[in-house]
Amino acid sequence: MIHLSGTYTDLYQLSMAQVYFHKQKNTTAVFDYYFRHNPFGGGYTIFAGLSSFISDLAEFRFSKEDLEYLKSHSFDSEFLKYLEGFRFQGNIYASLEGDLIFPTRPILQVEANIIEAQIIETWLLNTLNFQSLIATKASRIRQVAGDKTLLDMGLRRAHGFGGYHASRAAIIGGFDGTSNVKAGMDFDIPTSGTMAHSFIQSYDSEIQAFRDFAETRPDNCVLLVDTYNTLSSGVPNAITVGKEMENRGKRLHAIRLDSGDLAYLAKQARKQLDDAGLNYVKIMASNQLDEYVIKSLGEQKAPIDIFGVGTNLVVGKPDAALDGVYKLTEYEGKPRMKISENLIKISIPFRKQVYRILDSKNAYFGLDVIATLPEKQIDHVFHPFEHIKSIDVSNFKREPLLQEVMRHGEVTMPMRSISEISAYRKARVELLPPEYKRFDNPHIYKVGLSRLLKEERDSLILKLKK
Amino acid sequence: MIHLSGTYTDLYQLSMAQVYFHKQKNTTAVFDYYFRHNPFGGGYTIFAGLSSFISDLAEFRFSKEDLEYLKSHSFDSEFLKYLEGFRFQGNIYASLEGDLIFPTRPILQVEANIIEAQIIETWLLNTLNFQSLIATKASRIRQVAGDKTLLDMGLRRAHGFGGYHASRAAIIGGFDGTSNVKAGMDFDIPTSGTMAHSFIQSYDSEIQAFRDFAETRPDNCVLLVDTYNTLSSGVPNAITVGKEMENRGKRLHAIRLDSGDLAYLAKQARKQLDDAGLNYVKIMASNQLDEYVIKSLGEQKAPIDIFGVGTNLVVGKPDAALDGVYKLTEYEGKPRMKISENLIKISIPFRKQVYRILDSKNAYFGLDVIATLPEKQIDHVFHPFEHIKSIDVSNFKREPLLQEVMRHGEVTMPMRSISEISAYRKARVELLPPEYKRFDNPHIYKVGLSRLLKEERDSLILKLKK
Repeated sequence: MIHLSGTYTDLYQLSMAQVYFHKQKNTTAVFDYYFRHNPFGGGYTIFAGLSSFISDLAEFRFSKEDLEYLKSHSFDSEFLKYLEGFRFQGNIYASLEGDLIFPTRPILQVEANIIEAQIIETWLLNTLNFQSLIATKASRIRQVAGDKTLLDMGLRRAHGFGGYHASRAAIIGGFDGTSNVKAGMDFDIPTSGTMAHSFIQSYDSEIQAFRDFAETRPDNCVLLVDTYNTLSSGVPNAITVGKEMENRGKRLHAIRLDSGDLAYLAKQARKQLDDAGLNYVKIMASNQLDEYVIKSLGEQKAPIDIFGVGTNLVVGKPDAALDGVYKLTEYEGKPRMKISENLIKISIPFRKQVYRILDSKNAYFGLDVIATLPEKQIDHVFHPFEHIKSIDVSNFKREPLLQEVMRHGEVTMPMRSISEISAYRKARVELLPPEYKRFDNPHIYKVGLSRLLKEERDSLILKLKK
Repeated sequence: MIHLSGTYTDLYQLSMAQVYFHKQKNTTAVFDYYFRHNPFGGGYTIFAGLSSFISDLAEFRFSKEDLEYLKSHSFDSEFLKYLEGFRFQGNIYASLEGDLIFPTRPILQVEANIIEAQIIETWLLNTLNFQSLIATKASRIRQVAGDKTLLDMGLRRAHGFGGYHASRAAIIGGFDGTSNVKAGMDFDIPTSGTMAHSFIQSYDSEIQAFRDFAETRPDNCVLLVDTYNTLSSGVPNAITVGKEMENRGKRLHAIRLDSGDLAYLAKQARKQLDDAGLNYVKIMASNQLDEYVIKSLGEQKAPIDIFGVGTNLVVGKPDAALDGVYKLTEYEGKPRMKISENLIKISIPFRKQVYRILDSKNAYFGLDVIATLPEKQIDHVFHPFEHIKSIDVSNFKREPLLQEVMRHGEVTMPMRSISEISAYRKARVELLPPEYKRFDNPHIYKVGLSRLLKEERDSLILKLKK
């Protein structure tokens, strides 16, 4: 069992903090959180995890056990005294949770004493990388599922206690409910569930299992029909029990297919149900589903109403990680950067704002621009490294994306419910033109620099190379 | 923040439990935990997570909040009263943590009241699937790393709070230490860490950053040398600071490379260090490492002493999940099974024992046998489905693998430390012949059935098909 506390971090954060502390380097730093590649070969990423991070950050402390442990691991008493009183007191600016985010642009900026900013790094990355990964996977599945019901059923394959926030992120990305009761309870998410094969097997007859279940759990009753033979046993027995439920003034909610050829079985089961007058009974399918399988089922016009998705959703297969990083961009009022032969590893200095460019009809132009904070006028946007590429944006509108979410350690952003965040995600994904949402070779959403930012960054690179 | 409690489960476990409760089906059931495929295309899997599961299970309860939530979600007060007093009181038999495990054979058996056995399913699968996945990945990395030091640095890319047990499993699989302070503290794992680029960048000069760090954290001091230019700036500055440390009676522990061509840079850096008389300073490398990159670095004779592995380890790339399942095999004293057109989905009924077959020299023969509990004599072992395949094992020795770990809800297994579990893993992996440990097309370790188990299972299949 894990309780979040100050030690849920990498040791080096504390080592560096100890040096900063003793060398009186506890002045203001700015760090950028950003990532380098959209997951799943896709054209966009969904930002998730912000509320989890921000609300827990306000409570982030070092416990007595933490301090005792650190004492026995070469941390001195003066520094430990500092950690004892530790609380994050900085400012944070971020995109809204649920928004579309793209590689290389700042998603979130931390402006704080460097000790505080450093200590929270690991946990910030852990939370935002993971939830954004899963929300993005969920959004891709939502893209192909239309208005069908999507249920997260992945807890058994999720990464230990990571399953808790996987369910949260799935809802942000477009799922309707989860089997994870704890997540349902804590995040106010609809929970949903059916029955396991073991339930049927524990009876000598399938129909008796169905009867007992329907009697005890008549609301949203879903019967699993593939334990023995789907079409000759499971569906006929479910129909019998569905008819019996009608006699008690109840309705069978759905049957569930969990193996075999889902398209074929769904069509046959639909026909059997309809012929029996149970056209209101829905068909649910599960078994190693992902966006590609669901897309294929849709193309085959499989009459499936509810998809239960597990492993591939909650572990974010096949990428399983978002490559988000946290880089120092300003310290003691001076711009800072990391240079590298590998261009994508070059960080962008300064505190910044990011603008989404909209055309005259308020449609997405496919471009986010990073600019220094004071810049009010942005006429041209430049490719970060290919100097012949620039775009005239003087006739376009722009929407600032980074908003204050925390000030002096106090939460200033309005805390939204999961369903509000999910609705925002939906609205934002709808604004993105379809070419960017293609699974294969999507159009690349551009991220450029303002003229001033590019000039300042280039001159800093020259200076650092000397 | 998550606190483990009764609701960290799938809703359907509680729905089924409610039916069992009201239909007086609360009698003894046996469930098998097993998986179907070795991850990573490999020839073996390492069993991990048992102690976490067992020790938390002894404390597993429904909290007041859990019960209130369930009350508002159509669970009746009689059943909630049962949940209020819930504690697991069954028996559990399992392989030893750290052992080699193979597809289709029971790894763990739960023998308990069906309500209890069902409620713990999700969390059992969540814990054992995840930790076994990560321990297996770690073991593969250990295979190619020889006696080099392996450090887990993946917390920032781990799946939320799943990072906690990822670090534990990494050690079981063969890692030497972790950057994850919380895991280090709770599991008594050596912690380790260096510095981030941000630390260097916060200084106007690289060497001053190195000096401050070496002064404040002189023990196990590792300097990151690739912030500006590895060979013309980072390594020479590290050498200067290493010499200064010598004057204070200290020793620089290592330098760390985190980008670029690691083989080339390690060779050049080794030469620079040796030429300066710092042949004791180790070289650490990190940056998207996995078993294949480390194998390649070894083949190139890159003089790297310490590998820091992050993302690929803690998310278990590329599989990211072990496909473990939990199937009813006995209920009310009668064998139970799930049949399927898909042979690998057919479960094996009965309470069972699993034996590892050893040849006359006590070497692994490459075969585990599943037998019914009463069978003492096993002469022939049968392929589960291909009836012409059988092996005469009458002259071989056999080692029983499933041992009692919990009796009537009390832990009966000796609790071993992580280092003991890791040492056991090491000994077991050494016993496995090399062909089974190949990364490409490994030899397939066989799992067979005893004659009696095969006959009983086949007759049950015939009965169920009627």
